[in-house]
Amino acid sequence: MSILCVGSVAFDSVETPFGTADEVLGGSGSYFSTSASYFSDVSLVAVVGEDFPAEHVKTLEDRGIDLTGLKTVAGGKTFRWQGYYEYDLNQAHTRDTQLNVLMDFDPELPEEYKDIPYVFLANVDPELQMKVLDQVKDPKLVACDTMNFWIEGKPEALKELLGRVDLCVINEGEARQFADEPNLVKAAAKILDLGPSTLIVKRGEYGALMFHEDSVFSAPAYPLEDIFDPTGAGDSFAGGLIGYLAKNGELSEQAMRKAIILGSVMASFNVEAFSLDRLNGLTEDDINARYAEFKRLTHFEDL
Amino acid sequence: MSILCVGSVAFDSVETPFGTADEVLGGSGSYFSTSASYFSDVSLVAVVGEDFPAEHVKTLEDRGIDLTGLKTVAGGKTFRWQGYYEYDLNQAHTRDTQLNVLMDFDPELPEEYKDIPYVFLANVDPELQMKVLDQVKDPKLVACDTMNFWIEGKPEALKELLGRVDLCVINEGEARQFADEPNLVKAAAKILDLGPSTLIVKRGEYGALMFHEDSVFSAPAYPLEDIFDPTGAGDSFAGGLIGYLAKNGELSEQAMRKAIILGSVMASFNVEAFSLDRLNGLTEDDINARYAEFKRLTHFEDL
Repeated sequence: MSILCVGSVAFDSVETPFGTADEVLGGSGSYFSTSASYFSDVSLVAVVGEDFPAEHVKTLEDRGIDLTGLKTVAGGKTFRWQGYYEYDLNQAHTRDTQLNVLMDFDPELPEEYKDIPYVFLANVDPELQMKVLDQVKDPKLVACDTMNFWIEGKPEALKELLGRVDLCVINEGEARQFADEPNLVKAAAKILDLGPSTLIVKRGEYGALMFHEDSVFSAPAYPLEDIFDPTGAGDSFAGGLIGYLAKNGELSEQAMRKAIILGSVMASFNVEAFSLDRLNGLTEDDINARYAEFKRLTHFEDL
Repeated sequence: MSILCVGSVAFDSVETPFGTADEVLGGSGSYFSTSASYFSDVSLVAVVGEDFPAEHVKTLEDRGIDLTGLKTVAGGKTFRWQGYYEYDLNQAHTRDTQLNVLMDFDPELPEEYKDIPYVFLANVDPELQMKVLDQVKDPKLVACDTMNFWIEGKPEALKELLGRVDLCVINEGEARQFADEPNLVKAAAKILDLGPSTLIVKRGEYGALMFHEDSVFSAPAYPLEDIFDPTGAGDSFAGGLIGYLAKNGELSEQAMRKAIILGSVMASFNVEAFSLDRLNGLTEDDINARYAEFKRLTHFEDL
């Protein structure tokens, strides 16, 4: 089944201890769609400026991503993010954010997008995320991401949004912040009380935790010798996760667990290079082999 | 098979967001021995002062711990640690340390301890740890713990020690510090180069990683709703780990993985109460049930 993603498409300028990248293709929508495209059809709703090159459009199209919903604003400039990472690669430091065309982003779904059953609302203003939900017809799964900026700036809208989604993906620190609760198990319970049936907490190099009804699933991150650039790891994770769920078509807890591991697989590839360089050009064998490595990484026998 | 543990026995005064404990039984040797006693015979080498009450001796003896090696210094005072935790329970803050009888601790093994096949050198001066190794005859497994204090103060002695142990247990931040390498996979490789065949990195609420030859094993921590007091978690972990290895008698990688989960099980119990309150009085059923919960926590199907 296919996926609708609403998110950003950006030029990223990134510095890590291992190199720099200047105005490369980035944004939550780009990472999510590219990652999810290995599992399902993806239709992207996003906005760019006139400066967005045909070559980037082609990069996304080559992954089979439907760009009917990618709007180009005449005379506008594409969203830009500049940031750096120090040795603690869990922590992004922002140098500069130029929202540009994102400032007036008003996501309008092409008619044929409104019946898409799987919906991923990447990290944008929760009011925009809800505007998208107002337009979709009868989605099978609605998932969202968010961040501290909205937790601090629009907590009420965010709470309302959570009442309308099935699955929320959030960073660990932000889960504690949003729930105002240092214990993660309790914080998760508070967030689940707002509406979603599943909460997935991203913990960077420590993996992810899924809270779903009374059960908890702990997924490790893949221990990499070379993490080149963590930008987009969270969205690549969400892409593998929702991508697999849409492909699988069934939302059992076991399917969710596999989906989280596939999300972790995609994130582990993504951080091996700048921009989409590693995500593009993966093969099914690459993905299956790393999934098997996650199995070996976590396996232990019964007592 | 049985275990020799050299470590500290202490009075701990601890403050956490959930309560306080005043001059309760603590110390690496107490936590390790109590935890390991659920799996194997344990003989403890440690030192206390005349102020150490018979009631604490009985607590340890009731767990079947051999205290022939527990020396009481006439007129001496027992080692005391005072500390507190804030909401970040991964970080202990020391208020006061009174080494007292620990200052002149010179571990001398009773003759019958020298043939014990499993040796755990809890976190003390690496020169003392080596002094113990000079006395043991033909151990099957030697494991050690250490901390930043020795990494900073006695790095050369610590390196020499690592050339004489099979297994090293260390905190994540300390592994990076000791190897002078921010990437944990590379840091682990550097430490393994010093001698041990297995390195286990403790990550607090994120679990543990084992590096052994070319393989990595990732163990989660048990997500607890109420962590009362993290004091002794690392030593309880080591107790379950070495306790199971000694019981099992075989050091395959699969046995190591099970041992790490049992270590995590024991640590997860320990943090539920102050001092040894939760570790004492566990049943085999409690341990087996939590082991099964770790299985459920981490299980995912093949693709």
